[in-house]
Amino acid sequence: MTHKIAILGASGYTGAELVRLIATHPSMEIAALGANSKAGQSMAEVFPHLRHLDLPDMVTIEQIDFSAIDLCFCALPHKTSQEVINALPRDLKIVDLSADFRLRDPAAYEKWYGNPHAAVELQKEAVYGLTEFYRDEIAGARLVAGTGCNAATGQYILRPLISAGVIDLDEIILDLKCAVSGAGRALKENLLHAELSEGYHAYAVGGTHRHLGEFDQEFSGLAGRPVHIQFTPHLIPANRGILATGYVRGEAQVIHDTLAAAYEGEPFIIVLPMGEAPSTRHIRGSNFCHIGVVADRIPGRVIVIAALDNLTKGSSGQALQNANLMLAQPETAGLMLAPVFP
Amino acid sequence: MTHKIAILGASGYTGAELVRLIATHPSMEIAALGANSKAGQSMAEVFPHLRHLDLPDMVTIEQIDFSAIDLCFCALPHKTSQEVINALPRDLKIVDLSADFRLRDPAAYEKWYGNPHAAVELQKEAVYGLTEFYRDEIAGARLVAGTGCNAATGQYILRPLISAGVIDLDEIILDLKCAVSGAGRALKENLLHAELSEGYHAYAVGGTHRHLGEFDQEFSGLAGRPVHIQFTPHLIPANRGILATGYVRGEAQVIHDTLAAAYEGEPFIIVLPMGEAPSTRHIRGSNFCHIGVVADRIPGRVIVIAALDNLTKGSSGQALQNANLMLAQPETAGLMLAPVFP
Amino acid sequence: MTHKIAILGASGYTGAELVRLIATHPSMEIAALGANSKAGQSMAEVFPHLRHLDLPDMVTIEQIDFSAIDLCFCALPHKTSQEVINALPRDLKIVDLSADFRLRDPAAYEKWYGNPHAAVELQKEAVYGLTEFYRDEIAGARLVAGTGCNAATGQYILRPLISAGVIDLDEIILDLKCAVSGAGRALKENLLHAELSEGYHAYAVGGTHRHLGEFDQEFSGLAGRPVHIQFTPHLIPANRGILATGYVRGEAQVIHDTLAAAYEGEPFIIVLPMGEAPSTRHIRGSNFCHIGVVADRIPGRVIVIAALDNLTKGSSGQALQNANLMLAQPETAGLMLAPVFP
Amino acid sequence: MTHKIAILGASGYTGAELVRLIATHPSMEIAALGANSKAGQSMAEVFPHLRHLDLPDMVTIEQIDFSAIDLCFCALPHKTSQEVINALPRDLKIVDLSADFRLRDPAAYEKWYGNPHAAVELQKEAVYGLTEFYRDEIAGARLVAGTGCNAATGQYILRPLISAGVIDLDEIILDLKCAVSGAGRALKENLLHAELSEGYHAYAVGGTHRHLGEFDQEFSGLAGRPVHIQFTPHLIPANRGILATGYVRGEAQVIHDTLAAAYEGEPFIIVLPMGEAPSTRHIRGSNFCHIGVVADRIPGRVIVIAALDNLTKGSSGQALQNANLMLAQPETAGLMLAPVFP
Repeated sequence: MTHKIAILGASGYTGAELVRLIATHPSMEIAALGANSKAGQSMAEVFPHLRHLDLPDMVTIEQIDFSAIDLCFCALPHKTSQEVINALPRDLKIVDLSADFRLRDPAAYEKWYGNPHAAVELQKEAVYGLTEFYRDEIAGARLVAGTGCNAATGQYILRPLISAGVIDLDEIILDLKCAVSGAGRALKENLLHAELSEGYHAYAVGGTHRHLGEFDQEFSGLAGRPVHIQFTPHLIPANRGILATGYVRGEAQVIHDTLAAAYEGEPFIIVLPMGEAPSTRHIRGSNFCHIGVVADRIPGRVIVIAALDNLTKGSSGQALQNANLMLAQPETAGLMLAPVFP
Repeated sequence: MTHKIAILGASGYTGAELVRLIATHPSMEIAALGANSKAGQSMAEVFPHLRHLDLPDMVTIEQIDFSAIDLCFCALPHKTSQEVINALPRDLKIVDLSADFRLRDPAAYEKWYGNPHAAVELQKEAVYGLTEFYRDEIAGARLVAGTGCNAATGQYILRPLISAGVIDLDEIILDLKCAVSGAGRALKENLLHAELSEGYHAYAVGGTHRHLGEFDQEFSGLAGRPVHIQFTPHLIPANRGILATGYVRGEAQVIHDTLAAAYEGEPFIIVLPMGEAPSTRHIRGSNFCHIGVVADRIPGRVIVIAALDNLTKGSSGQALQNANLMLAQPETAGLMLAPVFP
Repeated sequence: MTHKIAILGASGYTGAELVRLIATHPSMEIAALGANSKAGQSMAEVFPHLRHLDLPDMVTIEQIDFSAIDLCFCALPHKTSQEVINALPRDLKIVDLSADFRLRDPAAYEKWYGNPHAAVELQKEAVYGLTEFYRDEIAGARLVAGTGCNAATGQYILRPLISAGVIDLDEIILDLKCAVSGAGRALKENLLHAELSEGYHAYAVGGTHRHLGEFDQEFSGLAGRPVHIQFTPHLIPANRGILATGYVRGEAQVIHDTLAAAYEGEPFIIVLPMGEAPSTRHIRGSNFCHIGVVADRIPGRVIVIAALDNLTKGSSGQALQNANLMLAQPETAGLMLAPVFP
Repeated sequence: MTHKIAILGASGYTGAELVRLIATHPSMEIAALGANSKAGQSMAEVFPHLRHLDLPDMVTIEQIDFSAIDLCFCALPHKTSQEVINALPRDLKIVDLSADFRLRDPAAYEKWYGNPHAAVELQKEAVYGLTEFYRDEIAGARLVAGTGCNAATGQYILRPLISAGVIDLDEIILDLKCAVSGAGRALKENLLHAELSEGYHAYAVGGTHRHLGEFDQEFSGLAGRPVHIQFTPHLIPANRGILATGYVRGEAQVIHDTLAAAYEGEPFIIVLPMGEAPSTRHIRGSNFCHIGVVADRIPGRVIVIAALDNLTKGSSGQALQNANLMLAQPETAGLMLAPVFP
């Protein structure tokens, strides 16, 4: 049986990445592509790399007949997404890739995003989309909130360690290096090739990055008490990839064992042999996440590093993984593409 | 039925690319990975991006039992390849990715490669591997010679035009821009990031590039008289991609019509609408080739531009396409991956 | 004696490049920085790489007292430039970096730029700023029109050859590869890092690039009859640099001798030994232009390749070179910076 | 008066960078270029970007008449450097860019570099070359040991803070991002463009990087007790630049005040306004170092970030700054080049 899929926000990078992945999916068919600003255009015009595919033209969201849709991906900007989803049929299965339903607490949402939430009821219904940790809830969910790409990477490092109580909760530092596609296709000066190539720098320094809302919510929930990590992202002259360097306190072997046990059997999360460090070049274009653990020369200090592709495992790949669960398909369907290297 | 595949030279970029593609192939299984210099190592050690796959360890070529192999890819350096293949069973199906069997004439081989050929008999037997133009011969062949990546790109532009007699055979210029993975994983100063990033330049200027041997052989064969094109490759600071700008004499509409007709129904060759130019960003990591035709302001002058991925359509993807034919599999099996963008 | 300098359009890349060069100039002082959209801001805010310099804040053009200025650089967008310059004092020495005064014929200007010229009188007065070929006129000029960066590169290859009559005037092809800073700091999708990195392509294909207006004017003037070259620019994933590959007909040795003789004694134009090809990596950030000549395997065909930095020799360095002449300073003052490599 | 300069190891990146800087130096002249492996070649052959300069050909070290040399830069590999310097005249002024004389304690040297030191006496004589903190000793020194490029960057962040006692000495983490030219021109697989572009990763994880020897020596000396920082370097796909993100404990305003006071009047070290973060794009090709201080959301946590060019301020620029002091020249001579952006 083929499931009919709609993608709203098909003219952005995460929308295009969804199309790329679904193109080889054995049981999904793209039935509608919504992109208000590009309505009437073909996908080949907006994303010529997809021109070999037989795809519907882009339409406005209003033009889509959702009664014929089995599952809808929303790859719209935050704030727009909550308004659009609020107007969609209440029985439509939705995977949202925006930030709008990641935070369960309306006050936390308003604190980090600066506006009151326009769909508080849906906010309560939404399931947090970090597949490996919410698998059962996602399988039964109607609305799943895709995580932040940085937030996903940090959680793959830290969730098992916090749950197992093997690290000092007050001494967690996450130094993250993100490629530029994480910022989307927006026209901003600092995203120009001439600005970014050969130029790398920290941004949102001091704990102002919005993905901290997700870290606070999830880590505090796991620990049963407030946990606030220190988090500094950096923009790197590359197109895809997140490398997160976590500085934690504990015993390296215990940490490695804890992570290895937590991810045993997971199809996409690979814990490297003790002492090895991952590289973004080895996960590019794929849904895999590599995690490495190294003991520091200072006793009790450990470095845990994770690498994933922000557009795939950090966003659209995660979304498809969740959609597979929601549609009772094999979780890995359409997602076993090997990384592209070099 | 699953076909058992061996890859010789698995520790190079084209070897790794073969593994990436075959990983999702429905009817092939990698049974042996030969790499003399890395024998005993796992693929995960040499290419960590493939660590999620269940692959045999690397072995020496001597250690492989070829009686259990249905088809063997040879991704070895030229000159080595002819020696190795000469020693393999004479009934083993082989796709060679080196330069060793591309030129049918032993004298032409010696002229371009500087040494007498060590397997002249096999040279006669080998079928030239440009799938779209040798499809039937490849389907029945035992030994197929993969084309040069630059040679493939140039031929996709020029073969239909030469065959149809719609361009001036004495006025063909090909200005080609190639990414660095085309040079392989060899340790050379000019392939270092610090040398190449921000630095682009022509090489093999003046008609000394070895792929000219293929152009001469194929184009002269098509035309029934000697055809010598002018060819200048340039090295570009990118990892994957060839962009070939062809300068020809003829009528633009006729040229566009000729190409469109020649590639109608081809699964991987896409002729863009008249006046559009392709970009390497739109074929990266895929087996597709985009071709554009634009009329110049000077009457009778036409620019024809082709873009493909040197490691995929230019090498390992082409090899797999040919292997599919040789094993009577669907020609597109394992090859419909969409390009990775951004 | 120190000359007081004003720079209009100081918030763009060519404006910043002028500041970089003038910063170490022995006899120039930056007295005013005009940038209407950024008026009131410091240079450190707009270009933090210049924060070590003691510079005036940006002001609107109206706020500048031009009576205190010895020479004014205009680094404004075309069309704006002609309007601004038309309103400046008629005795003010001006080096314009826009396209507005490059074409002497108002009809040619309107053909290539799409609007009637707003300062036809000034258009007649302006001297074309290709220093090596208009040195005397520039020294006596009040208004100098900086050339297009692509136009400069092509002319360094072709002018001496056309003047000497050593190439076939009807068989000139220029395949040019340009880095992205040539497009300026404008917010355009195709200039984003995620779009351009790993993606290269031809643009303005078919003879529609505006710099062809300069080629036509200059080459026809030199030849005494219409000369129309074929010109295809390509955008390359790099920040600085132009590499122009010229395909001409003639004798390689004669061509090399002609170029070597033409540029003998020139401080910035270096003709490489016969058979060598230049690279953009070797001129980055400098005012030098390297030119190489190679004979093709086809008798009578020659490849001539030039490399220069589009922001320096192609634009702001050229402008400073001309300003030095106009102010009777040593032509190389402030311009002998060695290229930055790697 | 012009000082005669020799550069040993002129065929590496730091040697070439010295030539670039000295090319515009008002009182230095390059009298000899030593490079044993390239002896007999011209600089233009090895580094075509320097071909506009009138330079002596490369010679073996034995061929240099050091009696005619006022100061010698040694840009040789470590271990080689100590042997070569040991054989040079004992009254020759030397700036060594290798690691050989950075560590004063022979046991520390052996621990970090794996071999006994071959010139223990010289090791005692050498002055550590971090100009801003050893200015007087350097001015009177005969042998100055250039610092590691990572070590310099970390010390610019931390020395004033350790000296002033305003941070917790046991809670210092340095997460450093380094461009590839820091690894030199060596032919290593991980330095290839195809490996590094789009791929970034941590290396020497766990406290094994040799520059930790310098940190330990200098910070412990300043504090009067052992100080061991946690240090993780990462390799970034860029050619030039180091960005060091320091995580410290203290009060942000006190830390900013301390750094601002420490570097007041320094020509090359610029402390940004409170809350701003530096970028490598703004120091490329220059001798400047930008430092930013930001308070974290966690009280008592502060992020201090420094950016400099590893080849200039981190190596050859520092070396020239020291040479200026040793020859009683203005400290900034030849070093006020503005950064190259974009």
